[in-house]
Amino acid sequence: MRTGVWLLGARGSVAVTSVLGALAVRAGLAEPTGCVLETPGLRSDALPGIGELVFGGHDISSIPLEKKAAALAEAGIVPAPLAAAVRDALSEVERDVRPLPAGDTQAEVADAIGADLHRFRRRHRLERVVVINVSSTEPAPPPHPAHADLDALRAALDGPEPVLPPSALAAYAALSAGCPYVDFTPSTGARLPALETLAEREGLPYGGHDGKTGETLVKSVLAPMFALRNLKVRTWSGTNLLGGGDGANLADPAANAAKSASKQRVLGETLGYVPQGDTRIDFVEDLDDFKTAWDLISFEGFLGTRMRMEFTWHGCDSALAAPLILDLARLTAAAHRAGRTGPLTELAFFFKDPLGKVPHGLAEQWQALRAAVDALGSPGEGR
Amino acid sequence: MRTGVWLLGARGSVAVTSVLGALAVRAGLAEPTGCVLETPGLRSDALPGIGELVFGGHDISSIPLEKKAAALAEAGIVPAPLAAAVRDALSEVERDVRPLPAGDTQAEVADAIGADLHRFRRRHRLERVVVINVSSTEPAPPPHPAHADLDALRAALDGPEPVLPPSALAAYAALSAGCPYVDFTPSTGARLPALETLAEREGLPYGGHDGKTGETLVKSVLAPMFALRNLKVRTWSGTNLLGGGDGANLADPAANAAKSASKQRVLGETLGYVPQGDTRIDFVEDLDDFKTAWDLISFEGFLGTRMRMEFTWHGCDSALAAPLILDLARLTAAAHRAGRTGPLTELAFFFKDPLGKVPHGLAEQWQALRAAVDALGSPGEGR
Amino acid sequence: MRTGVWLLGARGSVAVTSVLGALAVRAGLAEPTGCVLETPGLRSDALPGIGELVFGGHDISSIPLEKKAAALAEAGIVPAPLAAAVRDALSEVERDVRPLPAGDTQAEVADAIGADLHRFRRRHRLERVVVINVSSTEPAPPPHPAHADLDALRAALDGPEPVLPPSALAAYAALSAGCPYVDFTPSTGARLPALETLAEREGLPYGGHDGKTGETLVKSVLAPMFALRNLKVRTWSGTNLLGGGDGANLADPAANAAKSASKQRVLGETLGYVPQGDTRIDFVEDLDDFKTAWDLISFEGFLGTRMRMEFTWHGCDSALAAPLILDLARLTAAAHRAGRTGPLTELAFFFKDPLGKVPHGLAEQWQALRAAVDALGSPGEGR
Amino acid sequence: MRTGVWLLGARGSVAVTSVLGALAVRAGLAEPTGCVLETPGLRSDALPGIGELVFGGHDISSIPLEKKAAALAEAGIVPAPLAAAVRDALSEVERDVRPLPAGDTQAEVADAIGADLHRFRRRHRLERVVVINVSSTEPAPPPHPAHADLDALRAALDGPEPVLPPSALAAYAALSAGCPYVDFTPSTGARLPALETLAEREGLPYGGHDGKTGETLVKSVLAPMFALRNLKVRTWSGTNLLGGGDGANLADPAANAAKSASKQRVLGETLGYVPQGDTRIDFVEDLDDFKTAWDLISFEGFLGTRMRMEFTWHGCDSALAAPLILDLARLTAAAHRAGRTGPLTELAFFFKDPLGKVPHGLAEQWQALRAAVDALGSPGEGR
Ligand SMILES: NC(=O)c1ccc[n+]([C@@H]2O[C@H](COP(=O)([O-])OP(=O)(O)OC[C@H]3O[C@@H](n4cnc5c(N)ncnc54)[C@H](O)[C@@H]3O)[C@@H](O)[C@H]2O)c1
Ligand SMILES: NC(=O)c1ccc[n+]([C@@H]2O[C@H](COP(=O)([O-])OP(=O)(O)OC[C@H]3O[C@@H](n4cnc5c(N)ncnc54)[C@H](O)[C@@H]3O)[C@@H](O)[C@H]2O)c1
Ligand SMILES: NC(=O)c1ccc[n+]([C@@H]2O[C@H](COP(=O)([O-])OP(=O)(O)OC[C@H]3O[C@@H](n4cnc5c(N)ncnc54)[C@H](O)[C@@H]3O)[C@@H](O)[C@H]2O)c1
Ligand SMILES: NC(=O)c1ccc[n+]([C@@H]2O[C@H](COP(=O)([O-])OP(=O)(O)OC[C@H]3O[C@@H](n4cnc5c(N)ncnc54)[C@H](O)[C@@H]3O)[C@@H](O)[C@H]2O)c1
Ligand code: NA
Ligand code: NA
Repeated sequence: MRTGVWLLGARGSVAVTSVLGALAVRAGLAEPTGCVLETPGLRSDALPGIGELVFGGHDISSIPLEKKAAALAEAGIVPAPLAAAVRDALSEVERDVRPLPAGDTQAEVADAIGADLHRFRRRHRLERVVVINVSSTEPAPPPHPAHADLDALRAALDGPEPVLPPSALAAYAALSAGCPYVDFTPSTGARLPALETLAEREGLPYGGHDGKTGETLVKSVLAPMFALRNLKVRTWSGTNLLGGGDGANLADPAANAAKSASKQRVLGETLGYVPQGDTRIDFVEDLDDFKTAWDLISFEGFLGTRMRMEFTWHGCDSALAAPLILDLARLTAAAHRAGRTGPLTELAFFFKDPLGKVPHGLAEQWQALRAAVDALGSPGEGR
Repeated sequence: MRTGVWLLGARGSVAVTSVLGALAVRAGLAEPTGCVLETPGLRSDALPGIGELVFGGHDISSIPLEKKAAALAEAGIVPAPLAAAVRDALSEVERDVRPLPAGDTQAEVADAIGADLHRFRRRHRLERVVVINVSSTEPAPPPHPAHADLDALRAALDGPEPVLPPSALAAYAALSAGCPYVDFTPSTGARLPALETLAEREGLPYGGHDGKTGETLVKSVLAPMFALRNLKVRTWSGTNLLGGGDGANLADPAANAAKSASKQRVLGETLGYVPQGDTRIDFVEDLDDFKTAWDLISFEGFLGTRMRMEFTWHGCDSALAAPLILDLARLTAAAHRAGRTGPLTELAFFFKDPLGKVPHGLAEQWQALRAAVDALGSPGEGR
Repeated sequence: MRTGVWLLGARGSVAVTSVLGALAVRAGLAEPTGCVLETPGLRSDALPGIGELVFGGHDISSIPLEKKAAALAEAGIVPAPLAAAVRDALSEVERDVRPLPAGDTQAEVADAIGADLHRFRRRHRLERVVVINVSSTEPAPPPHPAHADLDALRAALDGPEPVLPPSALAAYAALSAGCPYVDFTPSTGARLPALETLAEREGLPYGGHDGKTGETLVKSVLAPMFALRNLKVRTWSGTNLLGGGDGANLADPAANAAKSASKQRVLGETLGYVPQGDTRIDFVEDLDDFKTAWDLISFEGFLGTRMRMEFTWHGCDSALAAPLILDLARLTAAAHRAGRTGPLTELAFFFKDPLGKVPHGLAEQWQALRAAVDALGSPGEGR
Repeated sequence: MRTGVWLLGARGSVAVTSVLGALAVRAGLAEPTGCVLETPGLRSDALPGIGELVFGGHDISSIPLEKKAAALAEAGIVPAPLAAAVRDALSEVERDVRPLPAGDTQAEVADAIGADLHRFRRRHRLERVVVINVSSTEPAPPPHPAHADLDALRAALDGPEPVLPPSALAAYAALSAGCPYVDFTPSTGARLPALETLAEREGLPYGGHDGKTGETLVKSVLAPMFALRNLKVRTWSGTNLLGGGDGANLADPAANAAKSASKQRVLGETLGYVPQGDTRIDFVEDLDDFKTAWDLISFEGFLGTRMRMEFTWHGCDSALAAPLILDLARLTAAAHRAGRTGPLTELAFFFKDPLGKVPHGLAEQWQALRAAVDALGSPGEGR
């Protein structure tokens, strides 16, 4: 079950931590800590192994993977000896990381992306390639009529003006090339009616949005706690301080707004109402890839008594995201193999802003995930 | 479905907040915030209404309920206008709060307790009486051979030496009088083989132990989060600062030890291993019934990266406990009515140290609770 | 030494808490907790007593003091029995709280303000009147050439266009009427060259800016700690969540910017460099007058080791500000009496953004304050 | 001004970080961050330079310095490249680290310690040797009449029974050998009347106790803040979680008690009263040399309003202590040179439990320190 994983943003922190970690696990140098498919309840023969994943990708940066790995080691995100140990394996992956294609029209760019995917698949004799977006978060794109209709979209892509943001263009190219697409970012990705039609026509699954790795993860268990106990949350205010490339990008108000919105969704969905308070994201370069989030929750109990809870989360974002990238690649590959099409709602467990009508409490999301893994059955049953 | 609720420790903070709150809800003066049976997923006609509960109890203190209510209002635990509004209703309850009986042998004391229960039931024409222990936490009792055998126990109770701690004697008396027994404290209660036999013989249900209202409640959602995400918890250290009568009592090392142990159980059960760190309980008179708990969790992610989380919980213990007392009374009454006997494992949702082999994650506990409520069916089906 | 205290914003939370508290202290019903002039190191006969203060003021709101006092009691900012006990005394003060005068030109408004001050002084036979601004924070005004020159200012005030923001107009009126002026807000107040000239010509002292009652107070001791220990602060990020009238007003970005800036000044001044990170102020209505501030400090020690500190401050802003208003009134009155003119730099202890070249560490500010109190000498020495 | 620094506990974390750091600073490889004598206000020619310090010491462990340095690097306490860069210089120091002498009587041990000190001084042609105790914290010793009288002590030391705890025996030996003695631990050290007499007779200065590097440092600025602002602290509860050798040792209740007591002293001294609450120290091996302290402060403001503050401190103990060891060595050497004798009260800035009647607020302690540095005058003036 050799499975290709094509990463958009392949030279970023999440991507390089994922690849480096998979290589280390394959070499027996590291445990798959943080990989949920390696827990007893979710292990399955229907999933490709971590060692069966083959990596490639696009990026607009040209910084070598090895240099990025050294920077991650320097910053304490991956252990320096591990980065050294997988250096050779990493430079092999380097050969499959290509500059994001350019072109006169977006149709040309999409074709070039598709050609890269085909070449990658052939070169490594892969059963399938899953495309995962871990590139910088985009601002929300201006609406365009062609977003709603696949034929109109195809026509518009031939025009001189860009009609899709990069993530959606990549999704278009991936789906057109027969590859499932997963978006780990809050960007548009496959979330346009025209692309949903495309996925359906091609019989392909897709997933997203916005990996849930810190404050929102905690919210997804605390908010249900308040709801199950019939305690009334009055205020939920959050502050996220983060550095790194992702933090720098989120210093841009437009990208920030997309992210903040997807961080609040869990509250309304699990509580049934939206408490006061906002979620802030502030860029603090010094913190690098380590994020500190602080949340204040004020709530009301029996007879109106006021109470409070606060939490602080000091997480390393890439170390939290990378094992989930491996999980998502394996799950999506197996779903594709099993003939699944359309939005993979069972991936809600992984996302801040999941596709479809899904539960938002982490425990229910886990159960949906487990049911989906069980349904994959044994590997022999796929197509 | 007029249901008696007999509170051991009826003059304590939890008891008086429960009674006062039930009276206020019945009078339409307060919302049942914090009562989990009032959430959409758990509402059921098979349960007695809050307005159908009739209160009485034992205590060793003689401070009038009204005076305790005033003290609770002064301390900001219940609103002063509410305490004033239910004053008359409260003094009616006063008539059913009796001094804990004394006697030459524990058998005599048990008989006197039973007589009080019968009188209470008759006086108010109650369908049944549920006994709930909300008295001060006891030190763990010395082991005694009679604890293991009902006949030996009956013989021993006739002797001059006390053989049961107060909570277990009350459980013995309750069960002997045909009343289900629930223990909201970490004390022994019905948790002795001899009493389990008694409950079985009498066809009675029982429940416990140790209401889950603060730090452990939060643990019961956070620990599963780490487990589901395959993150390795290295340290989980907790400090609980609390005042009030319960805090003063826990300043006694023996009572403290019983409590601290039951607070750590959730970690081993949900994580599958016990991380480093202890749970401390410190008495700080000044904090009164408001507890501040602080927990530090250090954990390890992908490739061994170290991360941390802390939380602070500022809760009002009685305001958190009281609505659960109402829930427990209603659930246990309905279970009794439905012919249930033995340990009510579906009550695990409410307890730090639940009876039986049960899940320790809050979400699974809720599902067990919901299944039990569903199984109660319609009120007509009971005996 | 009967001293008038004229409050701009006399119907606001800070003002009413100050007046109510002074009345309660005078009546022997409350301790002067939070009044720094009541500590052993600063007590002095040269200062008017709290009981010698007589209150009046302007406001644009017409909500009665008594009603405001009831709202403060309801919100837990002042004790309800205390508010009840001083109700009569408070309604006497009501007679000296007047609507902010209007007029065709700002000169007319200033004259009317001055007339109100004279009337207040005469009516109560006051030795002097200190004007203190506790009204809503203004946005920073657009610059105007007349701000730099007293004669030009006087001419401009006669024109039809407003040239001064309300706080500066009040300062102009106060100084013209022979009254010292203190600004507890970050607004302009007397901080214009033309007004500095006016104070000098009239031989009057003035003080400000922006009462230091929470996060900045803590910063003013923690930042020196890092500096004295030669630890390098890398990041200092703060979040302030507050409700109340002040919070609602600060939801306006312009007022917010003025405040945030004055909250960061202490870092540059005490550390000698400005670390990364911002100070945020967010309005959360639910928190009312209780503010929660959270700060993250990341610092570097010997050989570059990275460390962190966080603090959370849950303060009641008006309860923290009110005793300082009494201190400021007494100090400024005594300084005036002693013939002091110009900026009272010894008041830096009280302010986030103090006037003049002053120390920013709290301990040094206290020493400057103490020296000034000592220098006041005995009351007989004044003019 | 070549100055010897003889470290008791020379193979411990604090000692090795100090030595390694001094070597790195001397080699121009590191900044003296955390060394307070390198701040503008305290720099002085009367002090020996960091590069002029020569290290040696005693330990009961035989783990090589280099190996300890590697362990510190592994744990993230010192940078690995720095440890590598000073490896040769460190093995030179190794030659002056000797096993703690043994003997039939304590007098013999003291003589052997003295002989080691003389040899060290001669071998490196040092002007003087300062002895600093950074060995494991001892339990408080049982009282003994000989502690009160130097002659009785000398007689008792010749007996077969130990009469002094190790730290006091080392102090005795140091002072007898003409060396000033400083105790960075809470152990007894020179704090016995007999040893005070000895210091006086020998004309030697001494200092201590218990380096102030974390929670108590923060307390020494926050407690004065509350005092200066006349806010009444009701509760101050602290929890310290620490690993490392020091943490393991403090898991022993006797050592723990000594330490906890010295951590609370600052509150009584700066507030003028002792609030409720305790300071706890818990050993959590996993945290290694990184300590997490959490403190809850509840206080009362104007009219009794209740407020709260919490802080969390994540410090690396050895990185905080090591630069202070260099400061203490330099200050004590210069004081000795200047002819100072008896307790060096100006060192209060460095200690949790300072000798003599001294201020406990950090700012005042700094001023005392500065005055002492100024008084040292120019190096020519010494003896
Ligand atoms: N780490 C987490 O916990 C987490 C959680 C949720 C979402 N995310 C999202 O994952 C993404 C990656 O995060 P990161 O920390 O690796 O960021 P990063 O800045 O380190 O990496 C982003 C990479 O994307 C590349 N890139 C930018 N535009 C591109 C384009 N159009 N096509 C291809 N490559 C492009 C950049 O050159 C860079 O190498 C971000 O969008 C982030 O918001 C991360
Ligand atoms: N409040 C919570 O959140 C919570 C959570 C879990 C468990 N609990 C437990 O609930 C119990 C009650 O808590 P509280 O805050 O009301 O305490 P409390 O001290 O206010 O009340 C205890 C009452 O029990 C009475 N009592 C003592 N011994 C008795 C006996 N032998 N028989 C009858 N009455 C007796 C006391 O006189 C007192 O009135 C405690 O054991 C506590 O540990 C409380
Ligand atoms: N409370 C603190 O700890 C603190 C600290 C520093 C500064 N301050 C400042 O003190 C001021 C008062 O705070 P508050 O909490 O009492 O606010 P508040 O909103 O309760 O009161 C402000 C009062 O000013 C009145 N007002 C508005 N414009 C006016 C004008 N032009 N002339 C006269 N009155 C006017 C309002 O009607 C209101 O009654 C604010 O500017 C605040 O930023 C407060
Ligand atoms: N690091 C800080 O921030 C800090 C602050 C205040 C006080 N202290 C004190 O400093 C001391 C050292 O701390 P550490 O973290 O280096 O501890 P550590 O355990 O790493 O080192 C202590 C060393 O002392 C040695 N030792 C034990 N008994 C001895 C004896 N009788 N004579 C000579 N050596 C002996 C041990 O073998 C060990 O090498 C402790 O007492 C600690 O309480 C440290
Ligand atoms: Na915290
Ligand atoms: Na906190």
